Amino acid sequence: MPLHTDRAFEEQLGQLRTAVLEMGGLVEEQIAQAVHALIQRDETLARATIERDHTVNRFDVEIDDLSLKLLALRQPAARDLRLITTALKITTDLERIGDIASHIAERAIELAAELPIKPYIDIPRMADVARDLLRRSLDAFVREDTELALSVCIGDDAIDQLHEQLFRELLSYMVENPATVSRAMRLLFVSKHLERVGDHATNIAEMVIFMVKGRSIRHLDKLPREL
Amino acid sequence: MPLHTDRAFEEQLGQLRTAVLEMGGLVEEQIAQAVHALIQRDETLARATIERDHTVNRFDVEIDDLSLKLLALRQPAARDLRLITTALKITTDLERIGDIASHIAERAIELAAELPIKPYIDIPRMADVARDLLRRSLDAFVREDTELALSVCIGDDAIDQLHEQLFRELLSYMVENPATVSRAMRLLFVSKHLERVGDHATNIAEMVIFMVKGRSIRHLDKLPREL
Repeated sequence: MPLHTDRAFEEQLGQLRTAVLEMGGLVEEQIAQAVHALIQRDETLARATIERDHTVNRFDVEIDDLSLKLLALRQPAARDLRLITTALKITTDLERIGDIASHIAERAIELAAELPIKPYIDIPRMADVARDLLRRSLDAFVREDTELALSVCIGDDAIDQLHEQLFRELLSYMVENPATVSRAMRLLFVSKHLERVGDHATNIAEMVIFMVKGRSIRHLDKLPREL
Repeated sequence: MPLHTDRAFEEQLGQLRTAVLEMGGLVEEQIAQAVHALIQRDETLARATIERDHTVNRFDVEIDDLSLKLLALRQPAARDLRLITTALKITTDLERIGDIASHIAERAIELAAELPIKPYIDIPRMADVARDLLRRSLDAFVREDTELALSVCIGDDAIDQLHEQLFRELLSYMVENPATVSRAMRLLFVSKHLERVGDHATNIAEMVIFMVKGRSIRHLDKLPREL
């Protein structure tokens, strides 16, 4: 194959990486906006977040198209092949995170109409952790960095613990004062949604490890100490 | 390419379809068992369901391997390429449904230790609808049947409505009697989980339409009346 073709192929792989990163940046921003809207009780921002989900979905279609084109025309092997199929799979996770941002924004709209039952301290902290995990999982993808990917799998525990803690706290609110039930439920859904963002980041990180190492750490009972 | 090679390739594609169907059948069964364990308050069955999730995960790795092998060695084009990449993406959804079955089984174990707050009528109905949607989405994949796939996208509304209805009912239980809060919450999570099985089936159906038609109906505001 002539050298210029290899360069063109490298460029297209670069495009693919960039598109995945951009889509990731966008859904991370969507999560941030949705949680901000919740905390600030800003209905307008919440509606704008839901509206912008279209942009996320355009990326999804674009990355799928680019991946399929690369697979069809370039017939890549081994590591390049795994890069492309991983990109294909990652878009599914990113698209779901976009959906999650919309769901959080919907709860923000409902909660903006009622008095807050407690100061929102844990929710923004969970959102920060979730966004950080997502960012690191995508950095790991672009840099093909398995150590970084492994740190995401381990870091996901923190968000699960925060959710568990908030769950207990909200449960006690509901039991003590039934008037808080409907609001507490909505907050709990938000917490559950953020926990799922962490799960998606973990999925991405696991796929990155498979992509680089060619072996799956999904479904191991214990995480390996090193790769 | 000699004819026997084509036949071998067709056979491998057939293997791929069969593996996806088998994995689908297994997670469908997992959902059925988890809900059965919940209703029968059968802790042993719930634990067995969680245990069996390993089998689901083995399929996941197997299908990924087969897909990558087909992509690398066969360099398929157009429709075959879309079939293989769709299989790759479907496994992610099926694996998550397997996880959902485990989560439901965990709630079943917790709820088996307490008195039921109401007869479980809606939950098994939701589970039936969810399993039916899943089965149809995978039939649509294997038969490349876009009409059937479209019926899944439309049918998903039914499960969302059942969830909405149960949500309201459980909310009223919690408000009237705070002693039910923790049990009602767990049932609500089960309902939410089943709703997500419907979402996964819809995702699969949308991917099937893309696979066959080569165009995406994901992210259209309205579903097309015909394809």
